[in-house]
Amino acid sequence: MRIHIQNPPAGDPFAFTTEQWADATARAGAIGAEHDVSIGATEAELARAMTEAEALITDVDTLRELPPRGAARLRLVFVTSAGLDTLAPYDWLPSGAALLNNRGAHAAKAGEFAIMAVLMLASGMPAMLTAQRAGRWEKRWGHALAGERITIIGLGTLGGAAAMQAARFGMHVTGVRTAGGGAHPHCERVIAAADLDAVLPTTECLLLACPLTDATRGLIDRRRLMLLPRGAGLVNIGRGGLLDQDALCDLLDVGHLSGAVLDVFTPEPVPPGHRLWSTPNLVMSPHTSADDPRTYNPLSLDIFFDNLRAVRDGRPLPNRFDTARGY
Amino acid sequence: MRIHIQNPPAGDPFAFTTEQWADATARAGAIGAEHDVSIGATEAELARAMTEAEALITDVDTLRELPPRGAARLRLVFVTSAGLDTLAPYDWLPSGAALLNNRGAHAAKAGEFAIMAVLMLASGMPAMLTAQRAGRWEKRWGHALAGERITIIGLGTLGGAAAMQAARFGMHVTGVRTAGGGAHPHCERVIAAADLDAVLPTTECLLLACPLTDATRGLIDRRRLMLLPRGAGLVNIGRGGLLDQDALCDLLDVGHLSGAVLDVFTPEPVPPGHRLWSTPNLVMSPHTSADDPRTYNPLSLDIFFDNLRAVRDGRPLPNRFDTARGY
Repeated sequence: MRIHIQNPPAGDPFAFTTEQWADATARAGAIGAEHDVSIGATEAELARAMTEAEALITDVDTLRELPPRGAARLRLVFVTSAGLDTLAPYDWLPSGAALLNNRGAHAAKAGEFAIMAVLMLASGMPAMLTAQRAGRWEKRWGHALAGERITIIGLGTLGGAAAMQAARFGMHVTGVRTAGGGAHPHCERVIAAADLDAVLPTTECLLLACPLTDATRGLIDRRRLMLLPRGAGLVNIGRGGLLDQDALCDLLDVGHLSGAVLDVFTPEPVPPGHRLWSTPNLVMSPHTSADDPRTYNPLSLDIFFDNLRAVRDGRPLPNRFDTARGY
Repeated sequence: MRIHIQNPPAGDPFAFTTEQWADATARAGAIGAEHDVSIGATEAELARAMTEAEALITDVDTLRELPPRGAARLRLVFVTSAGLDTLAPYDWLPSGAALLNNRGAHAAKAGEFAIMAVLMLASGMPAMLTAQRAGRWEKRWGHALAGERITIIGLGTLGGAAAMQAARFGMHVTGVRTAGGGAHPHCERVIAAADLDAVLPTTECLLLACPLTDATRGLIDRRRLMLLPRGAGLVNIGRGGLLDQDALCDLLDVGHLSGAVLDVFTPEPVPPGHRLWSTPNLVMSPHTSADDPRTYNPLSLDIFFDNLRAVRDGRPLPNRFDTARGY
């Protein structure tokens, strides 16, 4: 297969190397053999490769900047992200090409970030950091996680990894899926999004880990935040648009919520002077929770080869991105 | 047995209640029965109780404020802390009374705080928080814990709990004991404090969890901090005096160390304007890492009754504090 990897600009920690490709083909066994691969970073390199390439491997930002053109033979566009919402509408996708994401690559890092955030909330760390900023020694205590109730919205790679970690620490885990129903190995119960309001009043920690779609945009609005009990905490590793940020800041300001750890925002980057920067008991990370440069590309390439195996065997592509559903 | 509980001032979240005592005696079975208990918080209440009491249960601050006097029948002084270094010299201890700490009560909370801190360091959270303080959006990535090398100084309750958590996340755990030797269920190897210098250059995360004694004071000095590889992180949940704080701040300032999470300091409280408050990539919690008000008193009382069982059975007291060793 003719495969082209279009990299972000030189120096980016997530640019693919020829060594990473060689290692991945070796790991992949038979399906890794006999490909004709090119790696480029410039517009000219992309244009040259697109006349022949059957598969393109690239990232969201590069794809937005340089969508494939004149790519008559392209059958697979593999994007090294899970959430492809910023690529909509998908009219740039060559007809006949399947769009794939790297769902699954984020599990280990995202699960660890999620439990770190949950531990920070239980420890009272957001308020401690606010006191530290002000140079104030204020004794405050947190608690261990066992027995605490967490609600996790979205049970895909991120939410599933978060649920695994939370269960390991003895938390009572409620999972929320669009349609509800079914079991999950790390949730005590799985409810439908329509039943969310019923569990919020007993949720001590609310964790958002679902994709941004028409159905989830603004899901956690002011009314739902107010349904959380006083002192609850919130983690968002999904998308900023899931949440009414202003309402969150208001409820942190008045102390209804004890803390929040956000990795995603609207907009990104968060502009200088935005109220998020100075809201008390709010911890911000710059949308990097799920990405580990040491393992990200190897994991992504392994997932790419899993999909080539499915093509070979005539199975549905496990990472096919449904542009209608939006995930 | 006549037992007196001397509480901190009213309103303290760690004051014992009659309900906690009743619940603990019920859990304790036979050894919990037939005690004559009094609970007080004033000097007069202490003085009245001391004429008859055989056991005193109290906390470090209260004991420093109001040491037992005229307590001719006192056989046990049970202090609800693990580190009793601030009670030295121990000349206030009535002759014939054994000093007990609550070693063991801190395991769950301290282990969770430790792994939270280690996850924060691996995620680059200290630098993210420094950027947040300045209102700057700076992309930076962390990594998952699997395969990272952590060295844990002290393998008592705190260090043992930290080792358990670190091993669970797939870290390579080196434990450090005063004399070295022996195995530990959650360490790949256990070395002697004298061999510490040999492992520091390959230590990505250094965690201090040992008591403060004449042997450990200043153990992590500037020279040893410099032995850590560039980018290493440090956690201190032991005592502030284990560490050269100024050297730590210097090495954070110049970026030799990537971050630190400190729960203990010299002095405490950290005074207003101290350089710790504004050192970059430093996360501070106000000496509350190991204490969970929801479980602290119940766990402490369970440990107290474990020691009464040992008295009854003629076994060595498991929580006897060795005033000569200092732990």
